[in-house]
Order: sequence, then structure tokens, then C-alpha cells
Amino acid sequence: MDTRVVAIVSGGMDSVTLAHYLANLDHDLHLVSFNYGQRHGSRELEMAARCSVDLNADHSIIDMPELRKLIGVSSLTSDAIEVPDGHYAEDTMRATVVPNRNMMMLAIAGSVAIAEEAEFVATGNHAGDHFIYPDCRPEFIAAASAALLIGNAGFSAPHFKGIVAPFLHMTKAEIVQVGDGLAVPWQDTWSCYKGGDVHCGRCGTCVERQEAFALADVHDPTAYADPDFWRGAVEAANA
Amino acid sequence: MDTRVVAIVSGGMDSVTLAHYLANLDHDLHLVSFNYGQRHGSRELEMAARCSVDLNADHSIIDMPELRKLIGVSSLTSDAIEVPDGHYAEDTMRATVVPNRNMMMLAIAGSVAIAEEAEFVATGNHAGDHFIYPDCRPEFIAAASAALLIGNAGFSAPHFKGIVAPFLHMTKAEIVQVGDGLAVPWQDTWSCYKGGDVHCGRCGTCVERQEAFALADVHDPTAYADPDFWRGAVEAANA
Repeated sequence: MDTRVVAIVSGGMDSVTLAHYLANLDHDLHLVSFNYGQRHGSRELEMAARCSVDLNADHSIIDMPELRKLIGVSSLTSDAIEVPDGHYAEDTMRATVVPNRNMMMLAIAGSVAIAEEAEFVATGNHAGDHFIYPDCRPEFIAAASAALLIGNAGFSAPHFKGIVAPFLHMTKAEIVQVGDGLAVPWQDTWSCYKGGDVHCGRCGTCVERQEAFALADVHDPTAYADPDFWRGAVEAANA
Repeated sequence: MDTRVVAIVSGGMDSVTLAHYLANLDHDLHLVSFNYGQRHGSRELEMAARCSVDLNADHSIIDMPELRKLIGVSSLTSDAIEVPDGHYAEDTMRATVVPNRNMMMLAIAGSVAIAEEAEFVATGNHAGDHFIYPDCRPEFIAAASAALLIGNAGFSAPHFKGIVAPFLHMTKAEIVQVGDGLAVPWQDTWSCYKGGDVHCGRCGTCVERQEAFALADVHDPTAYADPDFWRGAVEAANA
């Protein structure tokens, strides 16, 4: 039997690439997405659903409606806080931290994995996330994996082997190169934190997206409302 | 300012005692309860709400409706599996394991704690749980606390100090003695996994509840449908 893997797939380019990467290894996939009130949620979740259709994978959306008001201190979940423009390296990007988001997602995906006797939980975290988000760093992924294994030791989950994060030490540009080799449909991935009809091109994740395609030397099929802003933002961040 | 603590309170006797214990230390409390489709949920949640009123504490219920079908392999969440009678020590009680429940609850409570700048997440896990539930053991609580601290290191949660579990090395009988000293209103706590009008007296948690009051030599005001079953079940488990 194929190895069952529960993969956290937001619908962004990293997690969609993760799903294609795992499918290419012939794993039996269950994509799990989360709706925690993020303002770009509907676009992202639509892309995650498309990915599951593309890959003939199971897909579940975990809704956490009350959490929005409880953890709504980030601009990603609160309409009252504006999503800042510019490169991630800027202090203001810290406004996009959703408290403890990865731990919640990994814990819930862990429950699903254990319930359906999957071997792994997979996450698309990568080296580019480390600077801003402590819960994307290798030491956190290791600690969360250890907690899942210790908390489900023995009879309750003999099949479960922990968290895998194949992109943990890759840059976003390297993920684009992996995805290019796997023919990931980039137009069916969503990054923009502002959640409009097209990618804004100006928020941290739009800047990062454009920079990654450029560094990877891969054609970016994405339509951006402002396709020119990113170069200046990257230069300002590196200055 | 008082220390803000986010306490996981199910409405059972351990977690209600935990809330009284923390209130007695003058902590500023936010009780967080979870509705993950447990069949005894409405009775439990009612007791958690009463506890928050008694203690003048904040109270939030986190609803996870989709999780029921995803993790519904336990008799606690699936109507298709019968809750077994008898003492916890029996193999059949393993049917009451909800996959990775504690990790999910601690992760979500951690997000709430970090969002509202609380210092601690508190849980009522105790030594009596360790035998059956790996996610109630001290090594799991330590691993989960480490993951929360590592995942929220630095600027995002300078105030957060991790998980506290003051009953981790106590028996349930010792918790009853602590609660007796704090005048915990036992009639406003719910244990029975079957979730009827009164406690059944026969399921694992009813047996454990009656045994704990007897060992603690504290009067048990609870009405049980079958008040005599427990002695035989405890004797059988110890034989």
C-alpha cells in the first residue's frame, strides 16, 4: 500500500509544490487546509481545492470560526489592521504573524493523520520563512514532531512517524525550481495577503513571490496589479 | 497586574478544580473549552460555563465541527462505537482515546495565550490519565511546552512562559482533596462519557470519579444511574 501522508496545503505556491512533490513520490495524499479567518482565505482555499482535483487527492478544510476573534491580532486575520507593502525583511511585516499558526495546523493535521493511520504529516515550510516566523524554523518543526510522536506513542499510533518538511532548508527560489520540474500549475496558486481579484504585487508575499521566480529564472504566469513595485522593495530590503 | 492564564477547562472535575486552584492564586483567567463532537459535550460545556460564572472568568468555546468526521474513530466522538463500561485499566477503555486531543487543545490554547499576552497555558492533566493516554504524560506536556516556546520565541511572544500542569503528578483522589479545600462545587462538574441526564455510574470516567471520591474520603454529591457498579469494576481491575 502507498504511504498515506496528511499534507498541510494552504493553496500557496510552497504548499501546492509540496503536494505535487509528494504525489510524484506516489504517496496517498490527504490535503488539509485551514480557514482561520485569513482575509486572503477564499482565494487560497480555492487553489488548494484545485490542487486536490489535479492530484486526485482527498481534501478537507478545517474551519475555526471562533478563533478569528480570539487570535485576530494580525493583519492577516483582522480587517482593522492594514497589510503592509514591502519586502518581508521590514519590521512592519511582523504584523502578518498569526499567533502560533503552525503549531495549531500541525497539531490538527496530526490528529487527522493518527485517526486515519497515515505515516506522516507534511508541511511546506522553507528557509525563507525563518527570519520572520519562529514557528517555521527547523528547531520548531523538530520540537513539534517530537511532541506529536511522544503524545501518540504506542498503541494509539504505531504507524505514525512524525512531521516531514522536505523544503525546510530550501529557499523559495529553490522551491520554484522544484515545482518547475514537476510542472506545478503556478496560475493555480495564491500568495497575495490582500486577497483581491488579482495579486496586488506590493504586499510582502507578492514581493517574495516575484523575487523567487526571478531568482529561479522560471517564467511567472501570475497577473499582478502592480508588476513593478517588487524590484524596488527587494533593493530597499537589501540596502 | 495579575498574571493572565489561559486554562483548558472541559467542565470535568479535574479542570474545574484547576480553574478554582488558579483563581485562588489570584490569576486573571480565560477558560477555554473545546467542542470536538464529544457525545458528552453539551453537559461538559454547560459545567465549564458555570465555572466561568462562579469565578468571574472569561470563557471561550472553540468549535471544530469538521473534526468530528475526520477524527471520529473514538467512542467519545462516534455514535457508532459504544462507550465501554468498566474501569479505565481495561483494554476496551482504549476506545475512548481521541487522537492527539491534548496536542490540539494545547496548541489552540497557546495561540489564544499568545494573542492576548497571557503568561501561561494551564491544563488539568494528572497522574491517573497517564496509563491510557500518552498525551497526558509528563514527557508529552514538557515536549508540547517546548514546542510552544520554540515556535513563539522572541518578539512574537516575549510574555509567554509555557504550559503549567499543577496536577501532573497527583492522583485523581488527590485532586479531589485539593478541590475539597477550595470548596469546588462538585455538582457543577461533569464526568460521564455517555452524556445522559445523570451520570451513568458505569463508564470508565464514572468509575474513576466514584473511586476518587472514596479514596479521598470526600462526600460525592453526584447522582448516578447505577451507584453500585463501580466497586466491582475497581476490584476486577485490581485483581
